[in-house]
Amino acid sequence: MKLGDIAKLVRGEVKGDPDIEISGVRPVETAAEGDITLFLKKKFLDHLKSSRASAVITAEAQAVDMAQVITSAPQLAFARVIAHFHPSPRPEPGIDSSARIGKNVKLGNQVHIGPYVVIGEGSEIGDGVALHPGVVIGDRCRIGNHATLHANVTVYSESVLGNHVILHSGVVIGADGFGYTIDEQGRHFKIPQLGHVVIEDHVEIGANSCVDRAAMGVTLIKEGTKIDNLVQVAHNCVVGEHSILVAQVGVAGSSTLGHHVVLAGQVGVADHIDIADMVTVGAKSGVLGHLPDARKTYGGTPAVPAISWRRYVAIFPRLPELFRKIREMENRLNKIEKQDSSG
Amino acid sequence: MKLGDIAKLVRGEVKGDPDIEISGVRPVETAAEGDITLFLKKKFLDHLKSSRASAVITAEAQAVDMAQVITSAPQLAFARVIAHFHPSPRPEPGIDSSARIGKNVKLGNQVHIGPYVVIGEGSEIGDGVALHPGVVIGDRCRIGNHATLHANVTVYSESVLGNHVILHSGVVIGADGFGYTIDEQGRHFKIPQLGHVVIEDHVEIGANSCVDRAAMGVTLIKEGTKIDNLVQVAHNCVVGEHSILVAQVGVAGSSTLGHHVVLAGQVGVADHIDIADMVTVGAKSGVLGHLPDARKTYGGTPAVPAISWRRYVAIFPRLPELFRKIREMENRLNKIEKQDSSG
Amino acid sequence: MKLGDIAKLVRGEVKGDPDIEISGVRPVETAAEGDITLFLKKKFLDHLKSSRASAVITAEAQAVDMAQVITSAPQLAFARVIAHFHPSPRPEPGIDSSARIGKNVKLGNQVHIGPYVVIGEGSEIGDGVALHPGVVIGDRCRIGNHATLHANVTVYSESVLGNHVILHSGVVIGADGFGYTIDEQGRHFKIPQLGHVVIEDHVEIGANSCVDRAAMGVTLIKEGTKIDNLVQVAHNCVVGEHSILVAQVGVAGSSTLGHHVVLAGQVGVADHIDIADMVTVGAKSGVLGHLPDARKTYGGTPAVPAISWRRYVAIFPRLPELFRKIREMENRLNKIEKQDSSG
Repeated sequence: MKLGDIAKLVRGEVKGDPDIEISGVRPVETAAEGDITLFLKKKFLDHLKSSRASAVITAEAQAVDMAQVITSAPQLAFARVIAHFHPSPRPEPGIDSSARIGKNVKLGNQVHIGPYVVIGEGSEIGDGVALHPGVVIGDRCRIGNHATLHANVTVYSESVLGNHVILHSGVVIGADGFGYTIDEQGRHFKIPQLGHVVIEDHVEIGANSCVDRAAMGVTLIKEGTKIDNLVQVAHNCVVGEHSILVAQVGVAGSSTLGHHVVLAGQVGVADHIDIADMVTVGAKSGVLGHLPDARKTYGGTPAVPAISWRRYVAIFPRLPELFRKIREMENRLNKIEKQDSSG
Repeated sequence: MKLGDIAKLVRGEVKGDPDIEISGVRPVETAAEGDITLFLKKKFLDHLKSSRASAVITAEAQAVDMAQVITSAPQLAFARVIAHFHPSPRPEPGIDSSARIGKNVKLGNQVHIGPYVVIGEGSEIGDGVALHPGVVIGDRCRIGNHATLHANVTVYSESVLGNHVILHSGVVIGADGFGYTIDEQGRHFKIPQLGHVVIEDHVEIGANSCVDRAAMGVTLIKEGTKIDNLVQVAHNCVVGEHSILVAQVGVAGSSTLGHHVVLAGQVGVADHIDIADMVTVGAKSGVLGHLPDARKTYGGTPAVPAISWRRYVAIFPRLPELFRKIREMENRLNKIEKQDSSG
Repeated sequence: MKLGDIAKLVRGEVKGDPDIEISGVRPVETAAEGDITLFLKKKFLDHLKSSRASAVITAEAQAVDMAQVITSAPQLAFARVIAHFHPSPRPEPGIDSSARIGKNVKLGNQVHIGPYVVIGEGSEIGDGVALHPGVVIGDRCRIGNHATLHANVTVYSESVLGNHVILHSGVVIGADGFGYTIDEQGRHFKIPQLGHVVIEDHVEIGANSCVDRAAMGVTLIKEGTKIDNLVQVAHNCVVGEHSILVAQVGVAGSSTLGHHVVLAGQVGVADHIDIADMVTVGAKSGVLGHLPDARKTYGGTPAVPAISWRRYVAIFPRLPELFRKIREMENRLNKIEKQDSSG
């Protein structure tokens, strides 16, 4: 592929020879001749200078003896070039003879159904769907076009997955929400979980994450949201469009997240909480109340504006000093009062 | 079903016409004619008034033009009515031809064994058990009557599950506890995990949760306890009756929880900790010492009485002010001392 | 087995009759005649005295009427004796007829491949490997000699597992790292994850844990490291030799841990963090910056030296008192200033 074509692909401008042949894409350290690489930070300019790459994607022209593609979004451009050189492998269409496909299942075109896959009655599988080995889909599910379910994923009955959804191995969609009420003898009486899960287009969910079915109604993950590994989304939650839930996040029942919300790793959100659009919550924070202000960043448990949280934790190391000072001031006060009374 | 019959089912009293036909059960917002609904909070009385439901379950008579079932435990009553109208679906009894059933396995009556289930040698499967696709049960296990193991559950050898146990997809019971000792070369020497897991009647465990086998002896989950998704219960723990472990809780080795303990989401409990009966630990707290006082509520890391924890976090925002005040007081003291000495 | 032989096995010295027959190994409380047991703590000497064990492993001779094996590392000796009496059961070699083995797969000697196992094209399976039911291995993987993959483990393509690796049920190795970049419309553009996972010899990984494949290059778990259940290791991390990651730990992308690092339960490590050799991080801590000092112990969020963290949390309960004192001192200052000015 010629450098000029890469520039077109990423809507950038060439500085240097557009006819250079680019045959691969790699980071600065490991790039070889023929590779295009990425440059982001001035402080790594020396790395770039010593790189063997044939071209570089950069936000502005660099003083290096190397062909350049200049674009306002170099990271995105680099990702696009990677995706071009390494298209996501799709398994061959075909249905393994061991797959158990229930009554009244509708299968789209060009589906791949691997060994030991089980699909329940009345489910619909869209065009180009890939179901890897050991995937189990319940009854009356709908799996959108070009969805990929990796090995050993489980989808309970009535779940709805949009187009281009990716579920990594061990994901569980639509298990019962955690709902009980106490009976007369102090035992937990299970509240039947009658709702279901809807996952919209282009959502990706990481390994061993869980999205529970609603008690009634729906647990909803909206379009374009990306969920990392070992994340818990409880019953009746709504996660807005293009949000990010990093690994080991937990969102308790009936909470609602806006669009472009970012919950960093191990964040917990209590039940019935509303989080506004574009809010970011720092790693390990515990959201125990509503976060109604869009675009703000929060931290700590209970979560407060990140700027406040950083101030608290900066003060903690000075607390022992505070106690010393107060003792000292008390002594001085005692002395003054003694003098005054004796004066 | 007549309203009078519903009242009998939930041991409530009818206010209005007991002969009304009730055909469904739904929350206030979505209830339609023929539905019975639930009313809990005065502040939502307007919602109830505008609901299209034909009847309502309530703790005391409401001033609405709607038949009512009055009961001291309306939430429980509502759950019972839901369970009546939506009985949990049981798969048809029968054993799929692909199921691999080991030597000397005893199967109860009316069991359902789905595709690609594997049962190890000498295991016993009780009456009415449902084993969904991809379930793997080791050797010498005992699965109680009417237990349900959802798809892709793994039960290691020697595990014992009681009657009416429910394990959601991806649950792993009886994997090796995390036990090592350092050898002469600083390598971790694996301590064989010889114990097993016992899960008593009516326990439910959420998706992708883990209960490890004991080093020696037993890891025990007692009757009626409910465990949410992605929870870790380590080797040799004892979790008392009717306890609640919310999502992503972790309990380290050899800890003992009393009955009716509640650990909210993402709580961690250190190893060899005792937690008294009916203790509640707030979300995200870290229990690093014993909690010997029954019925108390704790919070924070390390966990302290919740009332103390709330006091600390209320004080954090005032810490900067504290520093300012101390500086100000120091200045005043300096001034006084100067005057006194010069006076 | 004679006591003298046990002493040889653990390189200890016999005090008492070396010809006593030992037929089992159990903790002090449950040991019966013929058993050897373990004694560690002086305060439990009474337990030892009343034990029915025939012999005891101890660091120094105890004043009990019982044969003794004296060794400088009694815990390790006890583990070795347990391992001797209870060797880890290996399933019979053999390949189940239902196993799906891809083209150009190389199988070692004495492998056990259980029902419904799937192995992708071009993978290599070492000698003595055990693949339990439902294990799915992708294309071009290498599984070292004597590795054990428990039921329902998933290994994505190109993953490399060393010799004697143990993966517990539900583990997912090599799923895509969590990498996106924002496109012009504010959607997350998936960065192809082209790297892979390498897990070195003698690593054990607990149930439902995840190790993601690198974006480019490798995610690496070095020799002898032990990982508990529900742990997340993100793309491009390096975990050093003989480290310990306790349950529900999460390590974000591109972080590097030294050798013999210990992360206690529920610890989180931010991305691009370096942790020095032999560092210990206390339970539930959040590591938000580098920890460059080898052998140190850290705690809290953000993690600070454990000694500092313990000081802060000891001060929290005294904060209300601090506020009271400051109010009181202000009153005294007011009074003094009033006197001074009126004097």
